[in-house]
Amino acid sequence: MTTTVPSALVSARETVDPHLRRAVARLDPDTRRVSEYHFGWVSADGTPEVRSGKALRPALVLLSARAGNGDERAALSGAAAVELVHNFSLLHDDLMDGDLSRRHRPTAWSVFGRSTALLAGDALLELAHDVVLEDDSPQALRAARSLSGTVRSLIAGQAADLDFEQRLDVGIAECQRMVAGKTAALIACSCSMGALLTGASEHTVQRLHEFGFELGMAFQLVDDLLGVWGDPEETGKPVLSDLRARKKSVPVVHALNSGTPEGERLRKLYEQPEPLTESQVEQAAELLRGAGSAEWTRAESERRLQAGCRQLRRADCEGTTEGLTELADFVLRRNQ
Amino acid sequence: MTTTVPSALVSARETVDPHLRRAVARLDPDTRRVSEYHFGWVSADGTPEVRSGKALRPALVLLSARAGNGDERAALSGAAAVELVHNFSLLHDDLMDGDLSRRHRPTAWSVFGRSTALLAGDALLELAHDVVLEDDSPQALRAARSLSGTVRSLIAGQAADLDFEQRLDVGIAECQRMVAGKTAALIACSCSMGALLTGASEHTVQRLHEFGFELGMAFQLVDDLLGVWGDPEETGKPVLSDLRARKKSVPVVHALNSGTPEGERLRKLYEQPEPLTESQVEQAAELLRGAGSAEWTRAESERRLQAGCRQLRRADCEGTTEGLTELADFVLRRNQ
Repeated sequence: MTTTVPSALVSARETVDPHLRRAVARLDPDTRRVSEYHFGWVSADGTPEVRSGKALRPALVLLSARAGNGDERAALSGAAAVELVHNFSLLHDDLMDGDLSRRHRPTAWSVFGRSTALLAGDALLELAHDVVLEDDSPQALRAARSLSGTVRSLIAGQAADLDFEQRLDVGIAECQRMVAGKTAALIACSCSMGALLTGASEHTVQRLHEFGFELGMAFQLVDDLLGVWGDPEETGKPVLSDLRARKKSVPVVHALNSGTPEGERLRKLYEQPEPLTESQVEQAAELLRGAGSAEWTRAESERRLQAGCRQLRRADCEGTTEGLTELADFVLRRNQ
Repeated sequence: MTTTVPSALVSARETVDPHLRRAVARLDPDTRRVSEYHFGWVSADGTPEVRSGKALRPALVLLSARAGNGDERAALSGAAAVELVHNFSLLHDDLMDGDLSRRHRPTAWSVFGRSTALLAGDALLELAHDVVLEDDSPQALRAARSLSGTVRSLIAGQAADLDFEQRLDVGIAECQRMVAGKTAALIACSCSMGALLTGASEHTVQRLHEFGFELGMAFQLVDDLLGVWGDPEETGKPVLSDLRARKKSVPVVHALNSGTPEGERLRKLYEQPEPLTESQVEQAAELLRGAGSAEWTRAESERRLQAGCRQLRRADCEGTTEGLTELADFVLRRNQ
């Protein structure tokens, strides 16, 4: 089942892209070229390309402005900033993971070399700060602080993820903490940034942040399931790719800690020195199901989303929150 | 000749280190460990070490506060921030250049791996923003903007430097623009940051920035000379190392564009596909002298410093600028 893409996701791309392109155009020629390729605006040789990607985080910023009954236009710098931070982290993560493909195209580092891609990531991170700091809104400082705290969480999450690569004793709580940093922090920031920039009350901003945090956790749990059972056409990754790479995703960590025979057999596969064969990868997916981890992850994502929606109801938003709940629902239901 | 180290350089280390250590202590365990090693506070296994390094940029921030007749303590966040930015750039530059040694020790990436070092660089950059943004000074936003513009210049400079690696047609003007970004921007920011944070006039802040810019240019020119003829004990790099790596430093680019027979012979050595032999490296140093490039670079650094001092005299500083000129003089005279 593929659910309909909410219109907010599509329109955010159109609204934010010009702002984003103007920001990227201010970079030096080399990091600009890499960034424009990475965003899908041009091919490797610089020929313009039509992109169709979704803009989840910018959409959340704009919907957050609407929830606070603010003017979307006053949230544009925030929308661009979260997208820049997201893409900084993708550029550096692809480099660290050695991933060759992203969004159905070769990764930036594999096209332009490691050094230039590293530097382009640095440039996007700095540009995110720049975009928020030069906003002449009285909320610019608060927005910059929110962004900075978020990036620090994101880096800590990525550091934990790297650390997990070397370990098989990862607990479910620390795995969720990693996800909180690596994924949920930026989605939480996005869900509150629009309200913050348009002058909503601290109470509303805080509750929207908590809504976004739970949404971000749910998002990653669904992503982890899609990383195993998702349609390659939709995910842009080969089927079962997370298991082939023996990632310590939440469902895997759940299975390893489940105390079930399936969990123990999965551990043996994860411990095996040689690469997994294709039949072992398929077996690993079966073991995940057998350990109840797919089911648990799905239920946990539902629970997270309900907790988020409770925060949203408590947020005393002056504007409409319909777009946020619609997007949250989409995040959970996509490609079930 | 080794000139006496100005006391401001030594005392800045003592003043800023506690602030810097508290900031780094807020990082996640992995990027913290790498950062503490990189700063020289601990060995690779985490044993505390005594460090003795100089703190040029923090010293400039504190002297800048003094020049604006402000309280040094109000500039501490800025002093920590510029040192964090400087070390972010060192961590990432070492990674890009594949350098194995820094400050007489193995580089962080060669000890902790590429991914963790990359992430530690990201973390230090973000921490720099954090330290400035959380300052409750009314100047925090202005300081954050100054820092952000500086980091963007720094990244553009490093991008140009990477680009130069592939080219032999680098002109002297674009080489100086690269140095302006890679080195002078952060020194300019440092020289104005203290006055900015302690509420000096825009006129004073701007002139101090221009003083710092010229000082930064002079600093790099001297560094380029030391990279060829410096004492390895002092520079922490083997003698003639910049020529062995065929760096496009300012004196080299000057020689390549000098139209002299020596410049042409140097070009041949730089074009040669195989690595330079030790006698060729020594020959390259002789050719640099022969093309008049050592002399030109030395004169250019003097000229830059004099231009800087003119800006300083025009800055209408309410406090003393003696420390700044003393430091500038030291920068130019070290290890002549």
